[in-house]
Amino acid sequence: MSTTLASRASSTASRPPVTTVRVALAGCGTVGGALLDLLARHADDLTRRHALRFHVVRILARDASRPRSTAVERALLTTSVAEFLDTPADVVVEAIGGSCTADVLARGALAHGRALVTANKALLRTQGPALAAFGPRLRFEAAVGGGVPIVRLLREGLAGQGVHRVRAVLNGTTNYILSRIERGDPYAAALAAAQRAGFAEADPSRDLQGVDAADKLALLAWLAFGADPSTLEVVTEGLPRDVDAAVRGAARSGRRLRLVATAERAARGVTAHVSPALLHLDDPLAAAVDEENVIQVTSASSGTLTLRGRGAGGAATAAALLADLIHLFQPGTH
Amino acid sequence: MSTTLASRASSTASRPPVTTVRVALAGCGTVGGALLDLLARHADDLTRRHALRFHVVRILARDASRPRSTAVERALLTTSVAEFLDTPADVVVEAIGGSCTADVLARGALAHGRALVTANKALLRTQGPALAAFGPRLRFEAAVGGGVPIVRLLREGLAGQGVHRVRAVLNGTTNYILSRIERGDPYAAALAAAQRAGFAEADPSRDLQGVDAADKLALLAWLAFGADPSTLEVVTEGLPRDVDAAVRGAARSGRRLRLVATAERAARGVTAHVSPALLHLDDPLAAAVDEENVIQVTSASSGTLTLRGRGAGGAATAAALLADLIHLFQPGTH
Repeated sequence: MSTTLASRASSTASRPPVTTVRVALAGCGTVGGALLDLLARHADDLTRRHALRFHVVRILARDASRPRSTAVERALLTTSVAEFLDTPADVVVEAIGGSCTADVLARGALAHGRALVTANKALLRTQGPALAAFGPRLRFEAAVGGGVPIVRLLREGLAGQGVHRVRAVLNGTTNYILSRIERGDPYAAALAAAQRAGFAEADPSRDLQGVDAADKLALLAWLAFGADPSTLEVVTEGLPRDVDAAVRGAARSGRRLRLVATAERAARGVTAHVSPALLHLDDPLAAAVDEENVIQVTSASSGTLTLRGRGAGGAATAAALLADLIHLFQPGTH
Repeated sequence: MSTTLASRASSTASRPPVTTVRVALAGCGTVGGALLDLLARHADDLTRRHALRFHVVRILARDASRPRSTAVERALLTTSVAEFLDTPADVVVEAIGGSCTADVLARGALAHGRALVTANKALLRTQGPALAAFGPRLRFEAAVGGGVPIVRLLREGLAGQGVHRVRAVLNGTTNYILSRIERGDPYAAALAAAQRAGFAEADPSRDLQGVDAADKLALLAWLAFGADPSTLEVVTEGLPRDVDAAVRGAARSGRRLRLVATAERAARGVTAHVSPALLHLDDPLAAAVDEENVIQVTSASSGTLTLRGRGAGGAATAAALLADLIHLFQPGTH
């Protein structure tokens, strides 16, 4: 079987020809490992339903000696960015995080003519428009909403509908912590549980201070309103210092504390803010449980559309990366 | 300005070239008229944000003398299907409804090499796979979910996630009637209000008996599981005969009556049914108010994703048609 994108071979007389896609994967931690597992588990389905065969040709790791997913072939591992970028591939999947290495990888991949699929909201917030200028082969469904396909929806599904407002719970980690506290955990135990579940980093400050939600909101404002995410000011306030007391106080008044991100297109431009809010129980955003995200998009034509689903976790994020891979290469979806 | 798809002219030095798309519109009742209004109102935005200019070249009407949207140029009107199909166009938008004329139009359009955008679930239920066999230029976001972009989501956004269950309120008309009864209207008044609002046909039996929901569910099962919608058996039960009593009875037990459509992929194949159900108030499907649709999609990777939005009405349906038009012709989304 050839391993180039250009070569297509008919698997049976009645099925469409199968395209083989060479994937270079940067990062094989929680998300990268989950993607490798997903590709292995769904290989038959991807070939049968989408006429695609994904062939992982290289894996960039920060530390090649760490134990990782059983789906990782050790011979594919490298710690050299240069070697990684020199490996012929059709697409680079960037799941390594951070900003410096990711930026070099993203520009290198696009400059080499490869498609780029990334989950890196911090990178996209500052570099998104510059990366998009390389052409249309940049995809980032996994950067916002986890398993909620809000990126594709704003890019395409709601195109032309005059979206004027996005209101959302975008940070699965803080929501998981708030949900645990509502069920009786003290804050410290809730945070530890979020870390054990793989939702919170060792340093959870980007989540707790609302910075992660602000990055995601800026990307949504870019998609919905064309606002430049690198210059958009998102007024940001994180969870209150005494979260336990705030959650209890909310419950006493029949409400729920949620970290709410809102962006609106107004006459003077786009306004955006992230802040804790006391929500009525019948507010759809109050329904976000554990790591869920809830996103409301309001447009002139369709009123308010509400989406709710898993907003964090390796499996949901990997599924979003896979959806981008399928969309980029599936014959006939274009 | 040229009116062919192939010709592209740069509007300014810095903007992408604008593509002019020739649209032949079949039907200009509620939905067709709303689409014409939308195209006129958003013309600038479509050019600026999507580099598209839609030029309506022909309008097929059942009766050219009926009063219609002010956006209709009378010189474009025809009642002849042959004349309509002979008009050179890049895309046919089918919003004329029914099955016989629509089928002729759909096959004629695709056979002439045009793209086809349709809202016609009854046609798609029986002819969808045959029409799709003409190639990838068939789009039908408006056929299911109104303003909820569930078609694109199942086709692309959730691709590869192993969807195994779809559960939904899919009929905006019955939901509007149930909501009115819950707020105190008797059934007859609620039905009359639905007809005045443009949600219910003069003969509402397809909605009330669950046939419309069954057609939509069959399309979702096609998209989600690859089931052939023309042969899929959807066990269908409509609203109960005494709707008033059923709604009151549900309220007394702290529940809500909703018409629920469910399709599941099981070991033995796909099962599908539509039936009235008494839902707990915290069931996301119970949150469907007035003409809203709520759709839950459950997959191995992403758990349950819930979408809620306007499921009926000219504006929401027209917005879905426009999203398909943009997706078909926008440069760089491919």
